[in-house]
Amino acid sequence: MPHIALNSDEPGIRGLLRFRPETGRPLSDLAEVLLRGPSALTRGERELIAAYVSALNDCRYCTSAHSACAAAQLPGGMALVQQVRADAGHALVSAKLKALLEIASAVQQSGLSVSAEDVAAARAAGATDVEIHDTVLIAAATVLIAAAFCMFNRYVDGLATVAPQDPAVYAAGAQRLVMDGYLALPAEPKRPG
Amino acid sequence: MPHIALNSDEPGIRGLLRFRPETGRPLSDLAEVLLRGPSALTRGERELIAAYVSALNDCRYCTSAHSACAAAQLPGGMALVQQVRADAGHALVSAKLKALLEIASAVQQSGLSVSAEDVAAARAAGATDVEIHDTVLIAAATVLIAAAFCMFNRYVDGLATVAPQDPAVYAAGAQRLVMDGYLALPAEPKRPG
Repeated sequence: MPHIALNSDEPGIRGLLRFRPETGRPLSDLAEVLLRGPSALTRGERELIAAYVSALNDCRYCTSAHSACAAAQLPGGMALVQQVRADAGHALVSAKLKALLEIASAVQQSGLSVSAEDVAAARAAGATDVEIHDTVLIAAATVLIAAAFCMFNRYVDGLATVAPQDPAVYAAGAQRLVMDGYLALPAEPKRPG
Repeated sequence: MPHIALNSDEPGIRGLLRFRPETGRPLSDLAEVLLRGPSALTRGERELIAAYVSALNDCRYCTSAHSACAAAQLPGGMALVQQVRADAGHALVSAKLKALLEIASAVQQSGLSVSAEDVAAARAAGATDVEIHDTVLIAAATVLIAAAFCMFNRYVDGLATVAPQDPAVYAAGAQRLVMDGYLALPAEPKRPG
């Protein structure tokens, strides 16, 4: 039961975007830029970071939704996503992505938890193919994604929105998301009845 | 030590917005709607919530900046802001604002920390659903900025997220903010000549 009376029965952040479209629009814009805009990380990798941080935040709706989006856009599918959520350090992902997940986990603790060593490890893991400058930019993008999800997760859980149990709901949502992006999320109020 | 190329010497969030305008624009839009758009909470009250959560986040730049903006728009001025930051439960603010600050403090911990009792107390003190929604989102957004900013500030050389010591800097920024709003913050990259 959500803490406030929403104007739709849409789950998770969808209900919040519809409730207050004035804030919903910049939030959708931010998600679209961070998770689907131009980046040296694939969309699947970025959704994986979002799913990983959401799981650390215990936000069930966001974890389910972003896991489904990551699975739909990564060759390893849901098996890989679950492996990363269970034990990122031993998951079958690149050294670079592993180092970035480590940074994301530090950001989830607090911005102050990110150590110079974490950043150096990420740089080292990417320095062979990518310019150092780009590697730092990827680390910066990872921090922004992780920090954004600390916001989205607090928003969704702070208002106790509904999180469906059925994985099929999230898989269907992921298909729409992969096609249409975050800007297609509800931004106009829809009053029931 | 590799650097992100410095593209301005602006302090705090201003440096971040200018560095990455694609994310800076939705963040500025969100700040403008949340802190200055139509609301039953005054602009001063909303800046006070942002200052209070920034202090809980130990984010010196954001605490100073939002405290100055709150002081410039609240009858109680900086004395009231400092009272709230020191002991919100006994500060000379309305019962409604006190209950909303309690919710903001829970959101700062985690979205799951907000209890039905916190929300019932705010509603009993006269808070509407939109006010509760906005309080949760202001607190959550403050966490995003703090996490991103702390990391950039400490580990990405040359991003110039410096936090000036002089209160007069923040007071002058608050005057500009009160006049021009958050959309006037830098959103286009400026490369030094």
